[in-house]
Amino acid sequence: MKIRQVRVTPVAVRNPPLLNNGGLYNPYTVRSIIEVEADNGLIGLGETFGDKLVLDRLSSVREHLVGLSPFDLNALRRLTQTQAPHPGSEAFRFLPGSWNGNPTDAKIFGAFEVAFLDLQARHLGIPLCELLGGAVRQEVPFSAYLFFKYGTDYARKVDADYAEHDPWGEVLNVEQLVGEARRMIDLYGFRSIKVKAGILTPDQDVACIKALRKAFPDHPLRLDTNGGWSQDTARRMAEQLAGDLEYYEDPTPGLGGMADLHLATGLPLATNMVVTDFDEFRRNITVNGVQVILSDHHYWGGLRATQQLAHLCEMFDIGLSMHSNCHLGISLMVMTHIAAATPNLSYACDTHYPWFTEDLLLDGRVPIKDGNVAVRDLPGIGVELDRRALAELHQQYLRCGSHGRDDAAQMRKFKPDWERKKPRF
Amino acid sequence: MKIRQVRVTPVAVRNPPLLNNGGLYNPYTVRSIIEVEADNGLIGLGETFGDKLVLDRLSSVREHLVGLSPFDLNALRRLTQTQAPHPGSEAFRFLPGSWNGNPTDAKIFGAFEVAFLDLQARHLGIPLCELLGGAVRQEVPFSAYLFFKYGTDYARKVDADYAEHDPWGEVLNVEQLVGEARRMIDLYGFRSIKVKAGILTPDQDVACIKALRKAFPDHPLRLDTNGGWSQDTARRMAEQLAGDLEYYEDPTPGLGGMADLHLATGLPLATNMVVTDFDEFRRNITVNGVQVILSDHHYWGGLRATQQLAHLCEMFDIGLSMHSNCHLGISLMVMTHIAAATPNLSYACDTHYPWFTEDLLLDGRVPIKDGNVAVRDLPGIGVELDRRALAELHQQYLRCGSHGRDDAAQMRKFKPDWERKKPRF
Ligand SMILES: [Mg+2]
Ligand SMILES: [Mg+2]
Repeated sequence: MKIRQVRVTPVAVRNPPLLNNGGLYNPYTVRSIIEVEADNGLIGLGETFGDKLVLDRLSSVREHLVGLSPFDLNALRRLTQTQAPHPGSEAFRFLPGSWNGNPTDAKIFGAFEVAFLDLQARHLGIPLCELLGGAVRQEVPFSAYLFFKYGTDYARKVDADYAEHDPWGEVLNVEQLVGEARRMIDLYGFRSIKVKAGILTPDQDVACIKALRKAFPDHPLRLDTNGGWSQDTARRMAEQLAGDLEYYEDPTPGLGGMADLHLATGLPLATNMVVTDFDEFRRNITVNGVQVILSDHHYWGGLRATQQLAHLCEMFDIGLSMHSNCHLGISLMVMTHIAAATPNLSYACDTHYPWFTEDLLLDGRVPIKDGNVAVRDLPGIGVELDRRALAELHQQYLRCGSHGRDDAAQMRKFKPDWERKKPRF
Repeated sequence: MKIRQVRVTPVAVRNPPLLNNGGLYNPYTVRSIIEVEADNGLIGLGETFGDKLVLDRLSSVREHLVGLSPFDLNALRRLTQTQAPHPGSEAFRFLPGSWNGNPTDAKIFGAFEVAFLDLQARHLGIPLCELLGGAVRQEVPFSAYLFFKYGTDYARKVDADYAEHDPWGEVLNVEQLVGEARRMIDLYGFRSIKVKAGILTPDQDVACIKALRKAFPDHPLRLDTNGGWSQDTARRMAEQLAGDLEYYEDPTPGLGGMADLHLATGLPLATNMVVTDFDEFRRNITVNGVQVILSDHHYWGGLRATQQLAHLCEMFDIGLSMHSNCHLGISLMVMTHIAAATPNLSYACDTHYPWFTEDLLLDGRVPIKDGNVAVRDLPGIGVELDRRALAELHQQYLRCGSHGRDDAAQMRKFKPDWERKKPRF
């Protein structure tokens, strides 16, 4: 089996006006859809960041993959490295998902590796999770991912690109957040809750956690400020939050800051910001900065790398959870399959999926029931691309003019004086 | 594809009277040959230790594998753990290859995992190295593995089980060792040399290295005393050996001892004794005991674990070489395939293969040319079992009465006062 064609198609999907500590989400999220087609007609699927820098690099590697065996991941790595831009060039700088500006090729390699592995599994006629070592669970739990957000009526006055229809409404206080949680849990049955915090004041965030604890006494809770709080604030809030949190996600910036905070509070700290590659993993060992790592195959370098990360977490007694990459259904299924095959994944995974209404799969959106996504007894990731939807969302990409995420710039459309500050509180 | 039968066949092959710091090799080496047969008739092969404790545990897991998918490595792991003996029981103690008595199931899991992966590759019709991520080299370099040894004329007077025919003769001094090297390099073309030392005095070992350096000026040299020297001796010899060694393998016992020695000498220390599992790897990081690790899929837990080890070595800037497990042709091919697919394998691999004259492959023994074993463009490990040879070597196993290696007991047949001592010098 050889690869005869590789397609990389940028798409855009509508995004509601979700807030985070770094600003406001664009009206569109851009993603790259990857198809690796073999000479037997089978197609492996992948999905990753759609930001221009990633897209350019995917495109420059793409053409070199023709003729390769989809099993030859070492050749894929060599080609990714050969096509890497020179240090100092524009394309070498910050890639999304790498908060520390790490210039590795893990994202580019991983994007194709996932599609290679999906193609392998389809060729074998087995589910991807079986190729990855076998499912230890058929149902993978995800968490309700709560955001503060503007209502669309308001947001559209500033940026008309936000979709007219947004059933979630404005969420800017405790009551509205509990309502959002209620709605999301009613719809999907999630059994744990994550709050994207650092937008309201720390006291308001704590009040939200207390209200959620009361409304959902059996749901484990997580709070993620994306490094939005100072050491002092994070310590002060820790005193109030200690008994209520499953883990405390990126409360304060930097690995050193996290280490100090853990030493002071003893709380389990989680991250998808300060340990995002294997070098940072190595540094974390020496300082005991975080005790839970959120994996994300999009930037850790694919699925075999995610398995290496899982093994490292086992070796060094670090908890393993999963970050959400603002993803559509293809990545949701990839996440589900790697999670199904990872014995020591010890927490429900995060997912943005409920926030999107569009997707590009035949048979419609991936169902989430009782908070779980099920692996299916079908080849590969178990879903097929709807080419008409792909074409439409590609047209939407061309139309919308967005080439990536800039939450700070988007926020300044609403609050011209707004500044990106870390920590903010 | 489901597994319909698993066979574990113990075999014995003739072994010449090779010496090491721990004693003398038995006249027979025992190995377990593993066949995992799928419902499509394909058979995956594996080979591991044949010692009774291993054989018993392989047998107790074997029957539970019927009906599994050969892709389901997680189920294999669960079954291996379920069938594990209770701590405290006889079967729980020391397994060969685990010098620190580590009671993990890595050996049992790994033995089957290799056969599962071979079966996967055969099912796909691709070489095992391709399944493992693709060959980065088609030819894998091995080193000439020099042993001091008794001549057979002498050895047979004490233990008539040693084979009559042993073309290597007695090797107990510098000249004889250089002669052995010459013969082995003439026969196989090896381009690096390893000396199993710690039998003669340290000064004689150093003289051997000096003589080999002169006779083979372009061959990298390694010296392995299996922890046979004290700190003082190892330091003293290091002064004389520093410029001549590619690495200094287990000169002195214990991870702490190795760390002290490295601190004192700066020489790259290698091991297959003090870092033999992932826990020990973790400890090694904190003390910088060794700078080169000899992988061995037989006790690290199979091929995916070997890839995890390789990745760890890359992460922590540790060199990667490969240990020889007193193996036959099946394991030689497995070693070749995993080596071919491991980019950061930075040294020629060790192999006992030239010391055996018997094997159980169709098409005869695996050729070693210019010191290399080539991966073949055939499914799986690329060799087939000769069932007649398997039956004969199994009969030899039953006949010979050996159920494992006890180098010290064997040595005492020759020197009744001989004692296992570490360090010896
Ligand atoms: Mg986060
Ligand atoms: Mg050794």
